[in-house]
Amino acid sequence: MYIIGERINGMFEDIKKAIISRDEGILRDWVARQKDAGADALDVNVGPASAEPVQAMEWLVKTIRKFADLPLSIDTTKFDVMEKGLALAGEGSILNSVNGDNEKLDRFLPLVKKYKTKFIALTMDKKGIPKDCEGRVEIAANIVAKAVEYEIDINDIFIDAVILPVGVAQEHLPEVLETIKQVKMISDPSPRTVLGLSNVSQKTLDRPLINRTYLIMAVAFGLDSAILDPTDKPLVDAGITAELLMNKAIYCDNYLEAYRKK
Amino acid sequence: MYIIGERINGMFEDIKKAIISRDEGILRDWVARQKDAGADALDVNVGPASAEPVQAMEWLVKTIRKFADLPLSIDTTKFDVMEKGLALAGEGSILNSVNGDNEKLDRFLPLVKKYKTKFIALTMDKKGIPKDCEGRVEIAANIVAKAVEYEIDINDIFIDAVILPVGVAQEHLPEVLETIKQVKMISDPSPRTVLGLSNVSQKTLDRPLINRTYLIMAVAFGLDSAILDPTDKPLVDAGITAELLMNKAIYCDNYLEAYRKK
Repeated sequence: MYIIGERINGMFEDIKKAIISRDEGILRDWVARQKDAGADALDVNVGPASAEPVQAMEWLVKTIRKFADLPLSIDTTKFDVMEKGLALAGEGSILNSVNGDNEKLDRFLPLVKKYKTKFIALTMDKKGIPKDCEGRVEIAANIVAKAVEYEIDINDIFIDAVILPVGVAQEHLPEVLETIKQVKMISDPSPRTVLGLSNVSQKTLDRPLINRTYLIMAVAFGLDSAILDPTDKPLVDAGITAELLMNKAIYCDNYLEAYRKK
Repeated sequence: MYIIGERINGMFEDIKKAIISRDEGILRDWVARQKDAGADALDVNVGPASAEPVQAMEWLVKTIRKFADLPLSIDTTKFDVMEKGLALAGEGSILNSVNGDNEKLDRFLPLVKKYKTKFIALTMDKKGIPKDCEGRVEIAANIVAKAVEYEIDINDIFIDAVILPVGVAQEHLPEVLETIKQVKMISDPSPRTVLGLSNVSQKTLDRPLINRTYLIMAVAFGLDSAILDPTDKPLVDAGITAELLMNKAIYCDNYLEAYRKK
């Protein structure tokens, strides 16, 4: 499982404060904790309240780069914030995110080419998020077709089937699982699949239990990658165990340690 | 999720001792603990070492019936032990188990009719356990066809896709999940699906983690029922949460309590 650490996001109070006060210590701490916990990449999001998002992204990426050379997932819907982040983060970063709207794709996919990045694309468009699997897969297929037009490597595409909170759109949850399965059959080789996992548990009382349960189910349906808190050890254990039970890693008594040492 | 409590089984040392010494207290304790934890039925197995299995089954069922009127799952491969157990357990019990071999079906299904029970049938036959989903589903289809011949209600059929330990037959695990899914499509209404869950974690170091992870995956593929330890609260919580996220129960903040109060 390709783990994208979610924790450097201005929606968290400590990161919001760090951005406002340009406090490098808080960032250093979260970079180290996520890296030590096994993050393969780090998400970077200035948060919804940032007054000067381009400058905030610039500071975040430059500061993170003092402490780690992990790939960064530049997480914004704003074009200028995205371009600033990708330019500073370097090759192998992740553009996070574009959606299936053709105008958006034509605007953002050139950034993927220019900065040699991977990209995450949400299965939604101008009309919103389709309720059912068919609508989501249709959008995913359009995204893949567009990426092929731009001669982007299929391995650089991450399709995010867009999970909504269980308390808001519970009926979407099985549809998202089926979407993950069908996206893996769109082409051979297939695009990768990703979820912004913690959204599923928004406003629930036991968020870790719901996150971990949905992650296991999504892995069983073919999830390759997730944006999550890698310092939630039971969550990562659940993901590793799910991949083991899907026969994606060979069993040994210490399979959890073996995964982490890989 | 229909929970069949696994704990009254002579393979556990305390139950083995209880059978030998005819100690009703140990049985009373496990009946109460499993019932309080939400078991819908109780499995009853004299264990592999029982010298007089018919007498042991008779004592077990009669003793359990002093403490609870839950349906009992009479768990044996021996015909005479099965008949004794079913005769004493009463209508609505579960014959556990027969397999897909026609001779076995023709021997055991008349007991299902005679004692008005449900039955669990394993997707294996004389040739053993098929490695892949196709072989298992073929056996399941034969079992359903045979049951229809005997005019057994489809709701009384539980198909067990036979899980083997992850350390022994890891490649079977995704096949079992796919089997569960396809068994649910054999007919409409469909037979029920069940797993003897704890077998998956035999000889592993963290059995609860592996049991819980596989249960969640199986529920996502359509598992209706499991033979498990209902006093393992995180395991049952995982099953309840998996059904919630499959949209089989309506979300409320206290969904775990709501399930248990149902």
